Amino acid sequence: MADWKFDKILHGGDYNPDQWREYPDILKEDIRLMQLSKCDLFSVGIFAWSALEPKEGEFNFGWLDKVLDDLNAAGRKVLLATPSGARPAWMSYKYPEVLRTNADDSKNHHGGRHNHCMTSPIYREKVRIINTELAKRYGDHPAIVGWHISNEYSGECFCPLCVDEFRIYLKKKYGTIEELNRAYWSDFWSHRYNDFDEIEPPFTRGEGSIDGLRLDWKRYCTLQTVDFMKAECAPLKEFAPEKPITANFMEIFGGLDYWRFTDVIDVASWDSYPKFRGDDSDYEMMLNTCFMHDLSRSFLKKPFLLMESTPSLVNWSDVNRMKRPGVQKLSSLTAVAHGSDSVQYFQWRQSRGSFEKHHGAVVSHEGTENNRVFSEVAELGDILEKLKNVAGSMNKAEAAIIYDWDNRWALNFAQSYHKGDKQYVEVCVENYRALKRHGINVDIVESDSDLSAYKLVIAPMMYLMKPDTDKWIREFVQNGGIFVTTYASCITDENSLCILGGFPGRLRDVLGIWAEETDVLYPDQKNRIVFSDGTEYDCGFLCDIVHTEGAETLAVYGDDFYKGTPAITCNGFGKGKAYYVASRAENKMLEAFFGSLINQAGIYRPAGNTDVLPENVYVTEREKDGVKTIFVMNYSTGKKTVTLKNAEYTNALTGEKVSSSVCLEPWGISILQYE
Amino acid sequence: MADWKFDKILHGGDYNPDQWREYPDILKEDIRLMQLSKCDLFSVGIFAWSALEPKEGEFNFGWLDKVLDDLNAAGRKVLLATPSGARPAWMSYKYPEVLRTNADDSKNHHGGRHNHCMTSPIYREKVRIINTELAKRYGDHPAIVGWHISNEYSGECFCPLCVDEFRIYLKKKYGTIEELNRAYWSDFWSHRYNDFDEIEPPFTRGEGSIDGLRLDWKRYCTLQTVDFMKAECAPLKEFAPEKPITANFMEIFGGLDYWRFTDVIDVASWDSYPKFRGDDSDYEMMLNTCFMHDLSRSFLKKPFLLMESTPSLVNWSDVNRMKRPGVQKLSSLTAVAHGSDSVQYFQWRQSRGSFEKHHGAVVSHEGTENNRVFSEVAELGDILEKLKNVAGSMNKAEAAIIYDWDNRWALNFAQSYHKGDKQYVEVCVENYRALKRHGINVDIVESDSDLSAYKLVIAPMMYLMKPDTDKWIREFVQNGGIFVTTYASCITDENSLCILGGFPGRLRDVLGIWAEETDVLYPDQKNRIVFSDGTEYDCGFLCDIVHTEGAETLAVYGDDFYKGTPAITCNGFGKGKAYYVASRAENKMLEAFFGSLINQAGIYRPAGNTDVLPENVYVTEREKDGVKTIFVMNYSTGKKTVTLKNAEYTNALTGEKVSSSVCLEPWGISILQYE
Amino acid sequence: MADWKFDKILHGGDYNPDQWREYPDILKEDIRLMQLSKCDLFSVGIFAWSALEPKEGEFNFGWLDKVLDDLNAAGRKVLLATPSGARPAWMSYKYPEVLRTNADDSKNHHGGRHNHCMTSPIYREKVRIINTELAKRYGDHPAIVGWHISNEYSGECFCPLCVDEFRIYLKKKYGTIEELNRAYWSDFWSHRYNDFDEIEPPFTRGEGSIDGLRLDWKRYCTLQTVDFMKAECAPLKEFAPEKPITANFMEIFGGLDYWRFTDVIDVASWDSYPKFRGDDSDYEMMLNTCFMHDLSRSFLKKPFLLMESTPSLVNWSDVNRMKRPGVQKLSSLTAVAHGSDSVQYFQWRQSRGSFEKHHGAVVSHEGTENNRVFSEVAELGDILEKLKNVAGSMNKAEAAIIYDWDNRWALNFAQSYHKGDKQYVEVCVENYRALKRHGINVDIVESDSDLSAYKLVIAPMMYLMKPDTDKWIREFVQNGGIFVTTYASCITDENSLCILGGFPGRLRDVLGIWAEETDVLYPDQKNRIVFSDGTEYDCGFLCDIVHTEGAETLAVYGDDFYKGTPAITCNGFGKGKAYYVASRAENKMLEAFFGSLINQAGIYRPAGNTDVLPENVYVTEREKDGVKTIFVMNYSTGKKTVTLKNAEYTNALTGEKVSSSVCLEPWGISILQYE
Repeated sequence: MADWKFDKILHGGDYNPDQWREYPDILKEDIRLMQLSKCDLFSVGIFAWSALEPKEGEFNFGWLDKVLDDLNAAGRKVLLATPSGARPAWMSYKYPEVLRTNADDSKNHHGGRHNHCMTSPIYREKVRIINTELAKRYGDHPAIVGWHISNEYSGECFCPLCVDEFRIYLKKKYGTIEELNRAYWSDFWSHRYNDFDEIEPPFTRGEGSIDGLRLDWKRYCTLQTVDFMKAECAPLKEFAPEKPITANFMEIFGGLDYWRFTDVIDVASWDSYPKFRGDDSDYEMMLNTCFMHDLSRSFLKKPFLLMESTPSLVNWSDVNRMKRPGVQKLSSLTAVAHGSDSVQYFQWRQSRGSFEKHHGAVVSHEGTENNRVFSEVAELGDILEKLKNVAGSMNKAEAAIIYDWDNRWALNFAQSYHKGDKQYVEVCVENYRALKRHGINVDIVESDSDLSAYKLVIAPMMYLMKPDTDKWIREFVQNGGIFVTTYASCITDENSLCILGGFPGRLRDVLGIWAEETDVLYPDQKNRIVFSDGTEYDCGFLCDIVHTEGAETLAVYGDDFYKGTPAITCNGFGKGKAYYVASRAENKMLEAFFGSLINQAGIYRPAGNTDVLPENVYVTEREKDGVKTIFVMNYSTGKKTVTLKNAEYTNALTGEKVSSSVCLEPWGISILQYE
Repeated sequence: MADWKFDKILHGGDYNPDQWREYPDILKEDIRLMQLSKCDLFSVGIFAWSALEPKEGEFNFGWLDKVLDDLNAAGRKVLLATPSGARPAWMSYKYPEVLRTNADDSKNHHGGRHNHCMTSPIYREKVRIINTELAKRYGDHPAIVGWHISNEYSGECFCPLCVDEFRIYLKKKYGTIEELNRAYWSDFWSHRYNDFDEIEPPFTRGEGSIDGLRLDWKRYCTLQTVDFMKAECAPLKEFAPEKPITANFMEIFGGLDYWRFTDVIDVASWDSYPKFRGDDSDYEMMLNTCFMHDLSRSFLKKPFLLMESTPSLVNWSDVNRMKRPGVQKLSSLTAVAHGSDSVQYFQWRQSRGSFEKHHGAVVSHEGTENNRVFSEVAELGDILEKLKNVAGSMNKAEAAIIYDWDNRWALNFAQSYHKGDKQYVEVCVENYRALKRHGINVDIVESDSDLSAYKLVIAPMMYLMKPDTDKWIREFVQNGGIFVTTYASCITDENSLCILGGFPGRLRDVLGIWAEETDVLYPDQKNRIVFSDGTEYDCGFLCDIVHTEGAETLAVYGDDFYKGTPAITCNGFGKGKAYYVASRAENKMLEAFFGSLINQAGIYRPAGNTDVLPENVYVTEREKDGVKTIFVMNYSTGKKTVTLKNAEYTNALTGEKVSSSVCLEPWGISILQYE
Repeated sequence: MADWKFDKILHGGDYNPDQWREYPDILKEDIRLMQLSKCDLFSVGIFAWSALEPKEGEFNFGWLDKVLDDLNAAGRKVLLATPSGARPAWMSYKYPEVLRTNADDSKNHHGGRHNHCMTSPIYREKVRIINTELAKRYGDHPAIVGWHISNEYSGECFCPLCVDEFRIYLKKKYGTIEELNRAYWSDFWSHRYNDFDEIEPPFTRGEGSIDGLRLDWKRYCTLQTVDFMKAECAPLKEFAPEKPITANFMEIFGGLDYWRFTDVIDVASWDSYPKFRGDDSDYEMMLNTCFMHDLSRSFLKKPFLLMESTPSLVNWSDVNRMKRPGVQKLSSLTAVAHGSDSVQYFQWRQSRGSFEKHHGAVVSHEGTENNRVFSEVAELGDILEKLKNVAGSMNKAEAAIIYDWDNRWALNFAQSYHKGDKQYVEVCVENYRALKRHGINVDIVESDSDLSAYKLVIAPMMYLMKPDTDKWIREFVQNGGIFVTTYASCITDENSLCILGGFPGRLRDVLGIWAEETDVLYPDQKNRIVFSDGTEYDCGFLCDIVHTEGAETLAVYGDDFYKGTPAITCNGFGKGKAYYVASRAENKMLEAFFGSLINQAGIYRPAGNTDVLPENVYVTEREKDGVKTIFVMNYSTGKKTVTLKNAEYTNALTGEKVSSSVCLEPWGISILQYE
């Protein structure tokens, strides 16, 4: 693998000079404005296929030669994109097989983007050719520092080629049809297959009732996308082996298991578009963003890149509200605070026409530097230069949340609990939130991974257990770890077959309980969790009815026919402890409960607090070579004062000395360093 | 017809041993648990086609032989199912014609269940073969007490085979295309047909604007399903003529006219899944369930079977909430109270995998008898044994509600009143509710049926009049009956052509009124119904503006420009009376008004009350051989005391003597017998 | 062009005797009832194709001969319809190409209406043949006064024939593919086309991301419909050149640019179905109706025809509520008040069956004249005879609203502001409302039209600028006009490409401002507009952040980070003034602001008021030959007194003399004339 390394926090964005080939003055003006705004890294050519290969086999690199040379001459760096994210029209016209077939059997027409068949041999061959041309021509161009592979991979195709591939995948996975029938519990509704050729993916009007099949299809779609990406990268690895590779991810995207991409990327990156309302609710909204930042850093356990963000507004939201003054700075630095080594925008210059012409950009239709948005970008350019020594530093975490796509899919496919989406992501983020309220760094981990690096691991709604999940958890607790899991956990094996013999299945001994039933509540119904000291909290959604089998009861239900039965339990297991939270409680319960676990585990708190931070405040810490950088962020419209542990801090932006507390303006951020 | 007779209230459920063929210990354990829970009747093989005929023409009956023998040895009884509810994959793969075509022209893939073409000669032949094998092999098996035909018939197919059948049906019905054009009022929008071959069923993107055509399609779909069922049953009747037949219906299902099934079933049965919230609103929710119980008893005027129910929770609802303690007992006995001779569950043992793995079952994934759900089932098993002498008894009703699928469809197809669903079922149940509040038994009858058995007949929103509907009603009133109809009644003939000359059409003389216009109200608008004694009630939805033509005005409107005009009228006709309720009033109006009619008609009230029962209480009575069994049921979270007429009651469960009143626990039931 | 002229306000409606051919008595009764109700104009044969040509090439005109002769003998007049609005079944059966293909690739089955392919050569030929037959046979029939072309043109077809036509349209429009690529900004997402044959219309699963393409498709659909209509009319013009032509439009219909029909119709007409609730909110609801009345009059700057309306209720609404007593009179005369020379109903007699059998009609299923609805129609018949001298008079307007379909489509296609519909129509009507509250006549004009006839022109949300739009506006202001435009205006050129260099684009100098950014607000968020005198109003939705460049600031924002910046500006330009309203304010702001502009411009107010009218009151004035007719209308459930300027008025209905004020009953209208 090629290594991604930079000696500063990079700044820049998607640059699409192919759209402006008829406007040479604008291309020249771009260079001036890039320098003015201290933007130094650009993703070039993301959707430029029709500009690069206007007709089949006819290539036109002249414009790109000039752009790269001009950028290089101006000291700018480039992530060169492979153009597979959108097809030229000539290809759809000549080779309809490249067009995706949908789950409802409908065949796409040409149009849009991100919609090719991942299997099509023709599409793969066309991608191989253009990527080879790019790699050969530009592999050693001095401006180019890495490859931006395609764009926001996503989607599924149900064409005959894909159906065949899926059957091959299943044959390889199960070996015999009997083994597959077993995993699919296929005697139910007479669903037994005699042959792999009888199997189809879950078409809308086809087989939607076999959980295992639906799960396998999602897994297959991820693996086929990874396979496509590997094929994309092959020529790049051949002609430019030292250039690192990334693919831009999307926020907690449900369509692909990003964990499977970790061995094909050299650096993780993602496109972040939090929906700011401009009021105090933005703190809650940002939790998803921070979760994805932490997840992105956790993929490779390395700093990641904020690959896209908007300097002002997006154009695809229900309400395309612009960031208030200061919010672009704050949200960009929040990415850095969680481990990003870049702040990149979509896009550098607003398109004149087509779908995204109203998406915010560094340079607007007005075209000058004399406006609020450009000024704020330029101000951030200054700041990022001052944070040079943050580049490459890491957020060290002693607590982790288990988040797993297999589990997410299995839960959502399960006909159970509440219909449809089971709120797995929401519940993960709720648990994450309670940790963040204490200002600690948090990692996000896969369910079947080594947990030995952590003191505290939380597994919310871990419905599906992979073959080794319980082994890792067992080891972790045995060795002194604090483990927390919840309602709706440990229900099925990796094929979504229910574990027989009583829940929480394979962790029944570790947790020391038996969950007999799960009460599913209507949104307007609730129960209470009552601790022995009388403290009580609302709960609802799901209420497991639990019997202890060795565990201690920390809190009980306050209402209903199971009033007085355990709601939170703790089981000593080896040197560690395993907690079961039987119902979904209000945030305050999780804050208090996790606070006590953090203190019990002795987890490092950068700000030295012993209880939750002031409301609407985030704190993170990055560290490298003994230098610690604390980020204190205020997501509110009011001022906030945050007390810190005593240390000799230097404000990284002003150089001022600071001790023991900072006062933050509305939407303010303070970045402090000490050794 | 074969006769269904049993000397006890049966107890059991769907049993799918085909799913557990690799778990012989579990099959053995099943027998033990069946005995423990006093479950004695099982529906076996409902979706077992792929287990019975794993490959085309290769049969595998060994496992079923053993299951039936083991059950028999353990004294259990079996309803043997025909497996047509779900197809093996090999059949879809080899014979795509068996797959259904949807109204939007899309063709189904293999998958799911309940989705075969009812016309396909191949499917019919395959069903004939497997049913013949089953009938020959098991027709005289001592465990088998009847046939469970397919499962929950439903659905429509628009394939070319079905289109042809539909044309044949129309040709047979109308004779000439001119007669069809007349019935369809086809000069409207130039919709005249020259030939039956030009006609298509109402495809989504086809002819949706001819009411008569849409109505004929629904009628045809029912008849084609009945025809399919007859074909299914032919080999059973040939090889096991003495075994009775049933088909499990669904709650007030809109897709099929169940009245048309009454001459192909020997016993009615249905699958009942009321959605309990666990609070006092469950009383209202249960009205639909009780209506369907009464409808099921009314189909053959015989006790029916509760064929499916859940001992705890379902898995397909928006909120899959479990029944609170006691509710499984109460709701099961409510079925018995309305005429069921069984309490059956779906299913005996929870599946490990696939679509319904989280549906409640008698035996859970945990697998033992040591849990709440199993205990409650076993407790009910005891109770049902104590109710032996209730089996075969009938609920005798002197009041009836007219409920008719033709009318429901015609109303809903009508572009009129409020868009879309016209709330026909809701209005029927509202009227039914008012009768139930008085604790009387109620029958549900078809619109063109002999009404002479009743004292009071209510026809809510009887929009469509079949050719003989008015004849039966006319006779009924003439002979002293009390007849009530409402707004939106007597508008069209059987082809949904409006009756000319003024509404309520053919009953204008019987009712002695003319309804000039119908005011349609927005949901937030209302009017009032004011009686001459000053009592008044809110009304809304529809307000007919009525002129009396001989009828007496009992109440008038309180508001709007038609204030003071008749809202409720009464017309003497022959020896009886015909009432018109011109608007949809609040429940209290119907309770009071129907109370007066019940008293006037001298209808028998089992509890001896003269006004409504305490809130949230149901009362029914079954009778056989002079023994009367009164069921008093409390659908609330509070205690209820219910006063009874004086009699020497014996509590059927405790044997205690009871007189004149019972006190019911929350979700409690009291079952009293006397002669 | 043939001229439409009548010496009275016509009265009548759609008459479909083809549905009653088997009921000769009813046809005879129709004549009697027509005379009784003073209905004199009937649209005949709208959907009569299958009655006229029951089999391909076999014509049956006998019934129509008789109907026309009978009507003529009874002194009734006829608009003879071409029957292309619905196809006979034989045609769909034999020539499937006439069936429309939808955007999702699905092909329609036969059924419904308004669903033929506008391109199909076969359909055009069949229409030519039947229209030729009609024109030759009836072109000089004395009853016939004009042609009613098809019915409510609408819809799009994506069949291969239409795709080809679209490519021809594009080739003709752009000349070269390069020019098209430029207009479509097609380098975005690699959307460049090499050949016109590669282009497809915006299929649902095709190219939905090129604004220019979507816009061209809508334009093409209009032009193809106009082309179809021209083909329809060719035989009529050949055989009956002197008979005027109309096509019935729908209310502010989004599917077709009605401005493009102005040179193929001789008189404008539309089908008006306001949704009355029967309460005071109806005033607001009627604004859309009045807007469409004014638009209809503006199409040809001539009186128009109210072609359809219901005497009582419709059958397709969510709640099919009947008009309260008096409302049919009021709403009919409101059409006349805005320039209609007719009051026509759909339909004369209620159909017995099919889709619209419950739609209100002059003659109901009951069939006599003895009911409320018929009486009110007859009463209106009397009134219309008294308004003879209003026929042909015009509403003279000095104020105009710019309303343009190109702009509507471009705005809605733009991914920007709030997702989906941008509320363009609502904003136009809001602005229109503020003018109507002052009781002035208003014209509606296209964006690139000569404005010299007006003193005040308002261009709400004029997002797209046609090539000459700024030229006309510039001239208008230069010559002393008062021009108002708003947020989201002057953003793109005619291809929806953003104008570079700062908004409001080409009008930046005329308006004297620069709009740097647009703040998009959530529905629950607001700002305030504060005038220098302290008056303030709520605003929201969109808030442009504006810098003056010569303009004067009339009001500023009251909140948020742009508090104190301009919210309303005024720029002197030439002899006129150009105002910019930067945010969407509450109605009261527009009322006050436009009131001051009306007064400043000296616009004629028929009622002589200087401020807004009493609430819920409309006033209009028509004039011909020196006679002015003032209509004062009360859309409320309470009485209203309206003060008028001093004049010698005659009540046109009663002949009474009136001076200076009128008192209106609930839902009342007063029609006063003076010279």
